Amino acid sequence: MPEARSKTEKVVELCKRRGIIFPAAEIYGGIAGFFEYGPVGVRIKRKLIEDWRKFFVESEENIYEIEGCLILPDKVFEASGHLEHFVDPLTQCKSCKAMFRADNLIEESTGKFVEGLPPEELTKILREERISCPKCGGELSDVKMFNLLLKTEVGPAGGEKASLRPETAQNIFLNFKRIYQSMRAKLPFGVAQVGKSFRNEISPRQFLVRLREFTQCEIEMFVDPRKVNECEGFERVKDVSIRLYTAEAQRKGEREMEIKVGEAVEKGLIPNKWMGYFMAKEFLWFLSLGIPREALRFRQMLPEETPHYSKGNFDLEIEFEFGFKECVGNAYRSDYDLRRHSQFSGEELAVVTPEGEKIIPHVIEPSFGVERPFLAILYHCFVEDKERGWNWLALPPKISPFIAGVFPLVSKDGLPEKAKEVYKMLKESGFDVVYDEKGSIGKRYARIDEIGVPLAITIDYQTLQDDTVTVRDRDTTKQVRVKILELKDIFQRVVDKNSTKDIF
Amino acid sequence: MPEARSKTEKVVELCKRRGIIFPAAEIYGGIAGFFEYGPVGVRIKRKLIEDWRKFFVESEENIYEIEGCLILPDKVFEASGHLEHFVDPLTQCKSCKAMFRADNLIEESTGKFVEGLPPEELTKILREERISCPKCGGELSDVKMFNLLLKTEVGPAGGEKASLRPETAQNIFLNFKRIYQSMRAKLPFGVAQVGKSFRNEISPRQFLVRLREFTQCEIEMFVDPRKVNECEGFERVKDVSIRLYTAEAQRKGEREMEIKVGEAVEKGLIPNKWMGYFMAKEFLWFLSLGIPREALRFRQMLPEETPHYSKGNFDLEIEFEFGFKECVGNAYRSDYDLRRHSQFSGEELAVVTPEGEKIIPHVIEPSFGVERPFLAILYHCFVEDKERGWNWLALPPKISPFIAGVFPLVSKDGLPEKAKEVYKMLKESGFDVVYDEKGSIGKRYARIDEIGVPLAITIDYQTLQDDTVTVRDRDTTKQVRVKILELKDIFQRVVDKNSTKDIF
Repeated sequence: MPEARSKTEKVVELCKRRGIIFPAAEIYGGIAGFFEYGPVGVRIKRKLIEDWRKFFVESEENIYEIEGCLILPDKVFEASGHLEHFVDPLTQCKSCKAMFRADNLIEESTGKFVEGLPPEELTKILREERISCPKCGGELSDVKMFNLLLKTEVGPAGGEKASLRPETAQNIFLNFKRIYQSMRAKLPFGVAQVGKSFRNEISPRQFLVRLREFTQCEIEMFVDPRKVNECEGFERVKDVSIRLYTAEAQRKGEREMEIKVGEAVEKGLIPNKWMGYFMAKEFLWFLSLGIPREALRFRQMLPEETPHYSKGNFDLEIEFEFGFKECVGNAYRSDYDLRRHSQFSGEELAVVTPEGEKIIPHVIEPSFGVERPFLAILYHCFVEDKERGWNWLALPPKISPFIAGVFPLVSKDGLPEKAKEVYKMLKESGFDVVYDEKGSIGKRYARIDEIGVPLAITIDYQTLQDDTVTVRDRDTTKQVRVKILELKDIFQRVVDKNSTKDIF
Repeated sequence: MPEARSKTEKVVELCKRRGIIFPAAEIYGGIAGFFEYGPVGVRIKRKLIEDWRKFFVESEENIYEIEGCLILPDKVFEASGHLEHFVDPLTQCKSCKAMFRADNLIEESTGKFVEGLPPEELTKILREERISCPKCGGELSDVKMFNLLLKTEVGPAGGEKASLRPETAQNIFLNFKRIYQSMRAKLPFGVAQVGKSFRNEISPRQFLVRLREFTQCEIEMFVDPRKVNECEGFERVKDVSIRLYTAEAQRKGEREMEIKVGEAVEKGLIPNKWMGYFMAKEFLWFLSLGIPREALRFRQMLPEETPHYSKGNFDLEIEFEFGFKECVGNAYRSDYDLRRHSQFSGEELAVVTPEGEKIIPHVIEPSFGVERPFLAILYHCFVEDKERGWNWLALPPKISPFIAGVFPLVSKDGLPEKAKEVYKMLKESGFDVVYDEKGSIGKRYARIDEIGVPLAITIDYQTLQDDTVTVRDRDTTKQVRVKILELKDIFQRVVDKNSTKDIF
């Protein structure tokens, strides 16, 4: 295997080798923009989503989760505006037929920020800047707009036109009335959804950063438009200090600022308390997942980047080796979606306020991707460790694929039997543990370090005498000797505190 | 609301009214074969899948779970045989243009079983039996075969042809080598996957029974073909008595037999121990989910029904109001898929045995649908209760949407505050509880009974004096008075035992 060069490449290599992420249909040469989770990856992903649910949904009294269909009839996307507006500028090489996102090409070769410009202007810039095909140097076609919805037809023989949803949000708007009624909900209330979304990206790239099939965790928070600053939880988070990159700072070429969320709302830098509430929680959440503070920022989107449905967006961006990338989009969708669906379907999508008024609620939307945060976590938790002799993942215990490896020191003299007893006891108590007796103890430490397992339990000759084992800390490689009976307690503390610092 | 007639219709009505299942895009008139889970339904579904994972995957030492893409390139389905064989016979009314599955039409109007017959023969039968359009009486077209893959194109401008997967199994075969290597697996080992699959059914119907988008939980168990009877777990289940409906009994018009799994394997009625192992576990699992024994059977599929990849199938069927329906398919897929993918991709998909031989493993596949079992559970747990004055769901605690409702007897005199304290304490201990103070206590009991919540905790005036509450049993309506401090313990026992019998 050739030496991987960048840290990102090392992470990708680790992902493939250790069952974290594989390219889809790899034995057929793959298909750009599609990746699959292996046995280790799926555990991390599931825990990441479970933690999101706990932190953003279950901890709230008024957020309901649903699970909708991935395929929806095109009537839905006519109303939502996706058929018309969900487009990217496409240019094709006249020689080698390769296709590119015109705005990305221009940005990469000139450094100019051109997102949101109409196709004629992009064509003009391509010509003026004499940009040619980066693959073969050939001439590029005029720019035209390409719709990113993945299309299908439902039913036999020229069935109903339908698309794969480009965001989970639409099911929430479609079911708004059913949820409102069946949950006897009152404003403000939120609806959450976790699931796959699809975008027919022109040029998927950067591993998990631009995918055609990906997972989202979204919340649509429905609020009375006159009460966007009545947010009960805001008091609890107003002193959270975040890193904010305002549109003004971007225009002036200035840096991000450190500011308390409360102050940012007061100064009008964040449009309302509900938006501020979610932003503060997001910042805290990513810190708890091992992303360093300096690698996090909220970037206010410039008017030309803002999606068609939004009255103002703040992207939570995480820094990768190739720059800051959006990992959460916070949009103020106003009443756009409910109003449009109401018009197009003829169904009244309003709520009755305690005062008896009918209003269409406004929507604050924190929209999380899963794959980008997943990659960001692997990237920031990846430790290149020459001293130890192997690289490892400093995953926080709450999302590590296993809480501990259980190893007999040697695979003889009754140690494997004893180790399996311990393993079973821990597994039956609901802890994710993995058993391994193959190879030297050092190799086994390396194997679990590599996939981010925080603890290693070793059963040795002393265990047979006094029922004690050694517990090794992944982060420091320190070891302590404890009674087998204490293990459950130790594990629970590590999970609850999301850290091993207490123990070592 | 008009009085629902059948039990199924009552269940459907409950699903819509109480946030369990809604038709997709309902405000646009829906789209046949697509349904969405509401806030209550998604909790039941999640717990059902979690319980499946615990029982079938996490309890085994050698089954790894993955999560693959829903869209795969058509090369995959050429190799898997789906492009050629995954077809249903279609006939269309020449007058009203309605489309039907020809075999279903014939079966319904003649009682003849014609699945698997070629289109010419189906056309002949349609003519002989003078079958016309059931909607308008018009003449039906000749039967032709229709492919059930939902198609899409990936990438801009006539991109790569791809389909939505019709089963989760294919990702497992595609990733076989990566999983085998990265997990350092040894035969026998299994790979599991939970996720959406899609079939462009000609006529979706019976609510959740025939869907175009649905969820599957599949396991592909890879075994040495010479060792299909070496199954460690079989000893533990060989005395499980199941209901078996053999192909012979079906041909002779006889009934299902009660037989122990061990005996059925010995007699050659079940092809091998691995298949028997899964069948026994499935039977036990559905019993634990509240499906009565008489409503469960394994039906051996007739040769003409067996999928193109299978050497023998046993469907676990559950009885609904409209007859027995497949809820789990158990297939002996042999080496079909790995061999085909190896041929078509040029990649060697073999394993090395301890003896150093290279072999292509055989596959035993238990394939669970989620929506049919979900509906079966609701149907069999639905209790029409004239005496109580409302219908309710006898859901097993392990899959009920909440473990308990927490109610102040009246919403004054400090009872709501005390009730919220109890509610918070239980929620923070990780129990799914729901708080309600609206309406009479009877109405509140009715509301949680309806969605299958097993316990109700009521905080009354006595609570303020001695910190005791009443706990009410959904199944018997019995009540006991306990200390608040005992609640966590009681809840844990109900969850662990999957029953309230212990308490009341």
